[in-house]
This record gives sequence, C-alpha cells and structure tokens, in this order.
Amino acid sequence: MNIVITGGAGFLGVLLARTLLKNGSLALNGAAPAAITTVTLVDRAQPPADLMADARVHAVVGDLNDLLTAKQALPAGTDLVFHLAAAVSAECEADFDLGMRSNFGATHQLLEACRAQTAAGKQPALVFASSLAVFGDSPQQPLPAVITDTTLPTPQGSYGIQKFIGEQMVTDYARKGFVKGRSVRLMTVSVRPGKPNGAASGFLSGMIREPLANLRAQIPVPASTPVALASPARTIEGILRAAEVSDAAWGARTAVNLPALRTTVGDMAAALEKVAGSKATALLDWQIDAATERLVGSWPSTVDAARARSMGLQPDTSFEDIVRGYIAGNPDAVTLK
Amino acid sequence: MNIVITGGAGFLGVLLARTLLKNGSLALNGAAPAAITTVTLVDRAQPPADLMADARVHAVVGDLNDLLTAKQALPAGTDLVFHLAAAVSAECEADFDLGMRSNFGATHQLLEACRAQTAAGKQPALVFASSLAVFGDSPQQPLPAVITDTTLPTPQGSYGIQKFIGEQMVTDYARKGFVKGRSVRLMTVSVRPGKPNGAASGFLSGMIREPLANLRAQIPVPASTPVALASPARTIEGILRAAEVSDAAWGARTAVNLPALRTTVGDMAAALEKVAGSKATALLDWQIDAATERLVGSWPSTVDAARARSMGLQPDTSFEDIVRGYIAGNPDAVTLK
Repeated sequence: MNIVITGGAGFLGVLLARTLLKNGSLALNGAAPAAITTVTLVDRAQPPADLMADARVHAVVGDLNDLLTAKQALPAGTDLVFHLAAAVSAECEADFDLGMRSNFGATHQLLEACRAQTAAGKQPALVFASSLAVFGDSPQQPLPAVITDTTLPTPQGSYGIQKFIGEQMVTDYARKGFVKGRSVRLMTVSVRPGKPNGAASGFLSGMIREPLANLRAQIPVPASTPVALASPARTIEGILRAAEVSDAAWGARTAVNLPALRTTVGDMAAALEKVAGSKATALLDWQIDAATERLVGSWPSTVDAARARSMGLQPDTSFEDIVRGYIAGNPDAVTLK
Repeated sequence: MNIVITGGAGFLGVLLARTLLKNGSLALNGAAPAAITTVTLVDRAQPPADLMADARVHAVVGDLNDLLTAKQALPAGTDLVFHLAAAVSAECEADFDLGMRSNFGATHQLLEACRAQTAAGKQPALVFASSLAVFGDSPQQPLPAVITDTTLPTPQGSYGIQKFIGEQMVTDYARKGFVKGRSVRLMTVSVRPGKPNGAASGFLSGMIREPLANLRAQIPVPASTPVALASPARTIEGILRAAEVSDAAWGARTAVNLPALRTTVGDMAAALEKVAGSKATALLDWQIDAATERLVGSWPSTVDAARARSMGLQPDTSFEDIVRGYIAGNPDAVTLK
C-alpha cells in the first residue's frame, strides 16, 4: 500500500507517519490489512532524520499548490492520501488570500489529482483533516449547547469556512466516484510538542509545553474559557480510523466530529500544577488578547461525537492524563516540583 | 443607484430587471429609496427588446467567467449585484466541470471583483441566489420532516454542493467586509414561461406551460412526489427583499430559505385540470425517469421559512392561483376547456 501525507513534515504528519511505519500495515476501508510499501511525505519542510532513515519513506519537498500544479505531489499508484496540510487559523484571519490558496485551492487541486488517478484506472482513498473550527458562535446565531454530527456549521473565521468548503468538495468528489473521500473534524490538539505555530489555539499547547521547558507562556483568554481538546494520540487514532472503517460503518458522506475532552483553560492550568507543581504555573502570564479571545471563544466546547463513538473512538479521560502523557513522551520536559 | 444582474437575460433576470425598472427606485439595506440609474444585464444572451429600449439598461454579453477575468462584468461604481447566473441542476450532474466553473468559479471571481471595488473605496452589496437544492435526502442521512433555516444542508447533487459552497464564500467575504453579501435559497420556480432548460425540476413548469400551449409534456416522477414551489412573483419578491432589509432584520450571515408552497405533482396536475380542463391534462405523459426522480426526490418539500416570514415574505396560497397567475400573465396561453 502506497500512502501520501500532505503536511507530512508537520507535527501531526510526522506522528502519523511514525505510527503507520511502526504498524507496518493498514486495513483500508474494512479490507484485510495490507503491508505499507511507501509513505510519501509532501511538505514545505524536510521530514526528520528518523523518518528519512526508513527505506519506505519518500520526501517531496515544496509548496503544495506548486507541486500539484506540476503534478508532482501525488505519485502514480497512490492508494491513500491523508490531507493534513493547511494554513492555520490565525494565519487565515491575517492573510485571507493565503488561506484561500492553501486551504481551498490546494484541497481542490488535490481532489483533481485524485480524480485523474481514478480516471487512469485506480481510485485513491483520501482522508481530509477538517476542524472543530467549522463551528462558530455569534450573537446572531448562537451555537447550541451541544454540538452533534448534524449541527449546522456557522464558521466565524476564514479558516473554518475554508475547511467547511473542503468538506463539501470531498463529499461531492466522493459521491461522483472521483475519490473515496472522508472528512474528520479534528478537535484542538493539546499538548503539541515543538515550536509555537500561527494557530489561534496554539496557547492551549504552549501553556503546558513552555512551563515544562522552564519557559514563560502567555494565556490570551480568561480561565473560564471552555475548550474541546484531544491528545495527539487520540487525534491520530481518529484520523486512522477514518481510513480503516467500512463504508457501512462510516455512514453518511458528511464529516465526522472526532471525540473531545471538555475542559476549561483554568482547569488545564490546575492540571499542570497538580502534575508539575506551582513553579510550573508560576510561569503562566494571563494576558487577554482580544482577537484570540474572539476566535477561540467562538468555537464549541461540548461535542457529542456519536458517529466517532460508533466507530469505537473515545475522548481522552482527563487533562491530567494528557499532561502526564506529554511528559512521558518528551524526555526533555522538566517538572519543577 | 447602479445595479448589475448576472444571468440578466434569463427568465428570472429579465423579470427582476422589469420589476426594478417599473419600481424606479430601491431602498437598499434599510435606507431611504434611491432612484435606479442603471441596470446592467450580464448574460451570454442578448436581453429582450423591451429592456434594451430603456435608456437605463446596459447589456454586457458574453461568458461570465471570461468577462470577470477580463474585468468587464462589474462596472465601476456598482451599488448592488444580483447574482443569478448559474449552470442548472441536471447540467451540473451531467458535466461536473461546467458546474464547478459556472457555479463555483464565477461566484468566486465575482466576489473578488466586489472585493476589488471595496478596496477602491465603495463596497457593493450582493444578493446570491442559492437554492433549495442545497438540501438533499439520502438513506444514510434522511432529511428531517420540516426544513428550517438552521437545518444542516446535505446536498445530493453537484449543483447543490456548488450553491452551498457559494453561500459559504458569500458569508465569509461579507464577514471580512469585502462585500455586503446575502444569500437567499430559491424554491423551485413554477410556472416558468419560455423554453425548457436543463434543470431537473424543469418539468414542474413544463407540465403546466406545455399543455397551455397545446403541447404534450412529460412528467418524470410519480404523482405522489411532494415539491416545494414558489411562483415567479413570490420569488422576485424574495430576491428583492434580501437587498432591501436592514442588517438587523436580516440577522445571521447564513442563507435564508424563501417561503414555499408545499404540494404534490399529482395535485399540480389536478389544479391544471380544474383551471384548464381535462383536455389539458390529457396532454401529460407520466413516464418515470430514474435520474430525475432520484434528484428531485432528494429535495425537501416542507420548508419552515421563519427568517423570510419575519421579513414579511409569505408563500403562494394555492397552486391553482399560480396557474391562474401564469395564464393572466401570458396572453398566448390556451385553455382547452
């Protein structure tokens, strides 16, 4: 089986690639497990050395839109594409054209590339990483208390709109038989290792990651702000399940909400203190940023992920466990307690 | 006030232009009525002679995408655009690329043209004609019994998907301040005069129009098929209202369902017989077409148009009245009774 990951050198792409290579096989769409022959990582950046050392890994480095235009992003004979590449939420608010190019344009071109492979005789599968950010609260249209798989998305940011448009395209390209396409809506992933990115939700990782590296971190929203989170492990599990389940188990062609742990930013800080001590939380600077508060505050916090549950997916059980999992997986993390 | 109508030589475009010219003024967005200075009709076809005889009317004839690329579709100083141009439902199912070009691509380019005018100093308003076809019934995701303004659209055709994507773009371009954009979802318009077009719903006009011209007409769905209709007059009223009401009266940035008369194809035939006699209904050929039955059968029939109602819009009261209205407005119609 030949797998392509767009955004393959990003945090989730690398984690997904490592998981796939470790598993060695994948049961696609309810079929028997098949050995993974190649994993092609398409990204602006070079993948890390451990991945490049694996003979199954190929890197295609460049701008995704340019690579798609040059017909270099999707190798012939691709069985499965995980489309993770995206411009993130705060970037898209700051630069509308960047978001339309990266989130709308590249997704459209990628679907066309899949369609061309189907026309050439072999229909690829595609898992599209959509986002919780398709949901947005506004005074004119308040979100319901609980988000379900059939709640009408009313995005309050360009990132959410572009992801929702991507879902619609995946649905119709799938209905037409141009690709076997499925969309999963990722919750906010915490704790992300590595460097801060341009996501408005970035502080939800930074507020744990930075103190555990003995660095200060800013929290730009009030402690009472509710959030819907998933650990990296649960997120990868959800992305993989979207490729694995049968059509019957998947059900409708619309996007599936992944499970979320509902917590608040204040409770996240309390969990950090419980695990890593008050010297860790003393590194947190609570300093409201209006734009971030508006965008993050528009996202829902309570998600009933019924379809994901029917596929055996569960949310994380506690944020304390997420923090402990992050420390266990990141030997450099320092607890100051 | 300078008004542009895309699809301005089509049936609805012509009717809208005649209405605007007769009214002479328009109260845009809750403001005082302003005199209509120009009405620019953008269409592949030349507008009819009565419109061209009006000194306020300008025609821009050509392919909308090409005109937009050449920056010729939107005159400088445009105050209001009615975007009616579209590839219709059966065309989009038969030719996916045509639909993406006409319904997605042209709408995107038109929004960019509006954005450029805003950047140049004057923000235009835009009313986007979306469609009932954004809603679609499927075994995996049955439609609720009653459609509301917050029902999740799950289009079962490319036309519906492309219209729904158009709504999302209008919403985000409006949120960003690039255009004052609003989307209204048109119900199936019946009775359309003129020639049959490529819409899967075309027979819902043809089954009245053709017998009233002493011609045979095919009905490709069972008599029990429920449908949601609006007369041309109610449809134009809804499109105009979307331009007229204030932001407060409009409410949320998502699309507004226009009101619909719920009836069945069998009851439509009965209304024809009551008004025009059994010689008219003897001209109907009931002959199922599977593709049309699938697409038309996936559309909803019962719409609770609460937002439209709050703007004073009401559905037609009976299909008999619609048939009588068609005969009154079309002197060539023959009743064989």
